[in-house]
Amino acid sequence: MSVINSKKPKASVTLTDVAQLAGVSLATASKALNGRSQVRAETRQKVIEAAAALSFTPNPFAQALNASHTGTIGMLTSDLDNRFVLPVLLGAEDAFGSGATSVLLCDARGDAVREQHHLNTLLARRVDGIVVLGRTTNPRPSITAGVPVPVVYAYAPSDDPADTSFTPDNYTAGRQAIEHLLARGRRSIALVNGEPSYTAATDRAAGARDAMREAGLELTGGDELYGQWSESWGRQCTETLLASGRPIDAILAGSDQIARGVLEQLRETGHHVPAEVAVMGFDNWDILSATARPPLTSIDMNLQELGRAAARALSDAISGTTEPGVHRLPVRLVPRESTASVQRL
Amino acid sequence: MSVINSKKPKASVTLTDVAQLAGVSLATASKALNGRSQVRAETRQKVIEAAAALSFTPNPFAQALNASHTGTIGMLTSDLDNRFVLPVLLGAEDAFGSGATSVLLCDARGDAVREQHHLNTLLARRVDGIVVLGRTTNPRPSITAGVPVPVVYAYAPSDDPADTSFTPDNYTAGRQAIEHLLARGRRSIALVNGEPSYTAATDRAAGARDAMREAGLELTGGDELYGQWSESWGRQCTETLLASGRPIDAILAGSDQIARGVLEQLRETGHHVPAEVAVMGFDNWDILSATARPPLTSIDMNLQELGRAAARALSDAISGTTEPGVHRLPVRLVPRESTASVQRL
Repeated sequence: MSVINSKKPKASVTLTDVAQLAGVSLATASKALNGRSQVRAETRQKVIEAAAALSFTPNPFAQALNASHTGTIGMLTSDLDNRFVLPVLLGAEDAFGSGATSVLLCDARGDAVREQHHLNTLLARRVDGIVVLGRTTNPRPSITAGVPVPVVYAYAPSDDPADTSFTPDNYTAGRQAIEHLLARGRRSIALVNGEPSYTAATDRAAGARDAMREAGLELTGGDELYGQWSESWGRQCTETLLASGRPIDAILAGSDQIARGVLEQLRETGHHVPAEVAVMGFDNWDILSATARPPLTSIDMNLQELGRAAARALSDAISGTTEPGVHRLPVRLVPRESTASVQRL
Repeated sequence: MSVINSKKPKASVTLTDVAQLAGVSLATASKALNGRSQVRAETRQKVIEAAAALSFTPNPFAQALNASHTGTIGMLTSDLDNRFVLPVLLGAEDAFGSGATSVLLCDARGDAVREQHHLNTLLARRVDGIVVLGRTTNPRPSITAGVPVPVVYAYAPSDDPADTSFTPDNYTAGRQAIEHLLARGRRSIALVNGEPSYTAATDRAAGARDAMREAGLELTGGDELYGQWSESWGRQCTETLLASGRPIDAILAGSDQIARGVLEQLRETGHHVPAEVAVMGFDNWDILSATARPPLTSIDMNLQELGRAAARALSDAISGTTEPGVHRLPVRLVPRESTASVQRL
């Protein structure tokens, strides 16, 4: 590929010109010049020849193609002021920072215009690659096309399956939670869920429902007990469930925050946890789970590990190796007293 | 100052050599070459002449003296995995990122060796300045001496008063809290505090004590009710206070987390909040304060604003203007139902 950077760039030549000459899309031209594995060898060759013919060598390309990297990567967050973002950021910073790579941090604050501004800044600074860190696990628009360096998506996966994304496996999280409660002998299990516009809520519900069906059971109160990600929703829904008179021996809450409300409502109405009703949540947010009364069993989403995995994947992509697709990473059950095996009342 | 950077650096010349030749300390030499205002003009002249005589021009100096800035600053955090760090980081990123400055993020994870490694990396990357972001408000060791670019300390102030530091005004926070409770007609006020090794706890206690004394009162239970930053300490200490039989009409908790335990204990023992006992906390951590039953009055430490102030000060310092010293920034009362004026029972 050294044919490309041996010539001076012409300011008027753009990636679009290269794509046109090669007869490929802009996205394909971008991916070809970055050594992405999902571009066929002959396509890449065409693009490289077109780039060479046009003397297409803007600086970021020259950097990437020369492997004369700047040793910096961009971390483009959607919303730093979000508790799910921090552990992912922490894991990624750890993975990069312990090596020779420095992290340029940009926060878009949920604003697409600001995101584009930051993206331009990162490219002007010749970053070797970018981690795009979303605030929810809902898919987000891909920014990969037209970006001349590798991009990896963390927490919020890209909506383009050709991109490389890392997100927690919420479906399996739902399954694991139900399997844990079933193993504790619970059969009448309700799922007090969060907001249905979040795939975190719907994916966990799908996993929970499937695990129940495989055991020949249905979720008590149905699988549509959606509400808010709040303690008050946990209290309110628990009150309704108890008032319905249906037997209930476990409540799976859509988050630790909801679970705190569930626990409080059960305690104040004289229902013993876990003897009468087992309770568990998702997220394993220590401030809520470990300090609950009783301490709350939860599913840890392994967000730091997710950040590290995204960082490693970006480093690999910068070296030319990619594994495109949405990688759903394992989660982890953290059992505590709220689902402990006890002499049933 | 252009005399300095017109010559090639000699690898063997260090800042120590410059300081020796000028007859000043290493710290003074560093400050003089950075245009710090606390160095006398004649001292600065001596240092500049010594640097010129020795052809002392490592790159970061050349950058700073040329005002050919890289437009990057280093954010050196002690512990990203700390909830007080995030809002400060957010405010600083906001202040820098909306301009032309990019933020290089490094997390030391509470490890001095790692901090030094990151510091070296930041200097090698020619940052224009560094924000050192600590995990507590306790003073931390200065890193300014020997660092050839301006440094500003946020949250944890530097132990060197010649440095520029920003930290919340915890003393006034304690005063404001007591003044609010007194204004609500409360007289028998207890302070259920956090850990005494934190200046956040001791400074707030000093402010609370002084405000009580000015009203001719003493804190109920004394001013040494130190414990842990935890809900369980809030419950336990409240139980002890109630059991003592002393009259009590308000509890000021050392943090929102402690306040949650206080509220819970009062509710479970049938004491109405705020009619019987008013309760308030510090930090205004929404997840705990706004969702409490009843919603919790708290003192917001304005950490985002603190981050922005530190960012502005660093920008000023890069331009040559500094205001050394520990700047204690105002905090803000957020009144909610837990201290509302009510018909007393």
